[in-house]
Amino acid sequence: MSDSPPGVSDLLGVLAYAELTAFLRLAEDATRYAPSLTDQAALGGLAAAEYAHFELLRDRLASLGVDPEKAMEPFTGPLDDWHALTFPGDWLEALVKAYVGTGIALDFYREAAVGVDDETRNLVDEVLADEGRSQFAVERVRAALQEDPKQAGRLALWARRLVGEALSQGQHVAAARPELAALLVEAAGEDIGRMFARLTEKHGRRMAALGLTPGP
Amino acid sequence: MSDSPPGVSDLLGVLAYAELTAFLRLAEDATRYAPSLTDQAALGGLAAAEYAHFELLRDRLASLGVDPEKAMEPFTGPLDDWHALTFPGDWLEALVKAYVGTGIALDFYREAAVGVDDETRNLVDEVLADEGRSQFAVERVRAALQEDPKQAGRLALWARRLVGEALSQGQHVAAARPELAALLVEAAGEDIGRMFARLTEKHGRRMAALGLTPGP
Repeated sequence: MSDSPPGVSDLLGVLAYAELTAFLRLAEDATRYAPSLTDQAALGGLAAAEYAHFELLRDRLASLGVDPEKAMEPFTGPLDDWHALTFPGDWLEALVKAYVGTGIALDFYREAAVGVDDETRNLVDEVLADEGRSQFAVERVRAALQEDPKQAGRLALWARRLVGEALSQGQHVAAARPELAALLVEAAGEDIGRMFARLTEKHGRRMAALGLTPGP
Repeated sequence: MSDSPPGVSDLLGVLAYAELTAFLRLAEDATRYAPSLTDQAALGGLAAAEYAHFELLRDRLASLGVDPEKAMEPFTGPLDDWHALTFPGDWLEALVKAYVGTGIALDFYREAAVGVDDETRNLVDEVLADEGRSQFAVERVRAALQEDPKQAGRLALWARRLVGEALSQGQHVAAARPELAALLVEAAGEDIGRMFARLTEKHGRRMAALGLTPGP
């Protein structure tokens, strides 16, 4: 780890736990809410992909001589809290969470990875690449909105809540792990405003893809 | 499907649903009971492997011109019932279920696949190969029994319940899907007693591996 900034094991740790818990939560949502076996399998496929990402990150931590469990441990509280505060109430909320909620979290990790060593950054980029897997969520939500446009209001509010709770938990993480926060700030350089503009723009694009007006 | 016995889509269908639902149930058990992140990840790894198997079976059904959802549908009731009747009460019960309960079910599928076309049988064999993935369950249960041998009695009873409920649901399936039952009987030939002896022997070996006396 000597040639890596001190936040690297934090970055890999938070991302590993994010993937592990996303895997388990998506599986739970698929069990609870999927309206058909095909839909259950599709959300299950997103979940299984998260597990494969978790394995890559865990193995990277181990290869750096870091205990994966210890690296993840500081982040279980805030991530578990985020999931508890954003427990979906139905299938559409689960899909919006899988696409919008996960999306903004992954954008943050990608920004934080800008300044780390090449091997770690390449791994993070690989893990964060969506490869069209979440496209089914976009299609399902758009189809549902076409059938019942009145759903758009509540789903847009739901998306804002997902993001609001993510920012709130992100602040807890930043306070508890200053080295991880430093990665993000250093990556942004002098222009942290521009970083937030990028995050907001990407979020807006996801909302538009779902057929939901971007939040202000 | 013209060159396959009529039970083939039933065999692929029941196995596909078994894998899909095992994936979701194992993920649920990992969320609920794992005593550490390492254990959660290990049971999660078993779950993710089941999802990969599901995908192979689903794709095989589709390539045979069979709607995977329709092929799975007749089996959701009995398999959901089995899981509902064998909901683990703690981490050790979850591990025994993952190893013993899943094991005996997979042995049945393997027996039923003896008489089907080569391509299907090879796929089923590939899907059923454990490749040591469940070894961690064996290690965890043995370690727990070494620490507290008194657990053996209740876990042995639990294993018998898992098998009893599996046989009971298996009878429901056989009654509802005679073509699938016929696959099993035809594969066994005149010696269905020997088939049951094989299943019993394999079950006994799993129980012994866990450090539990084989049930009578």
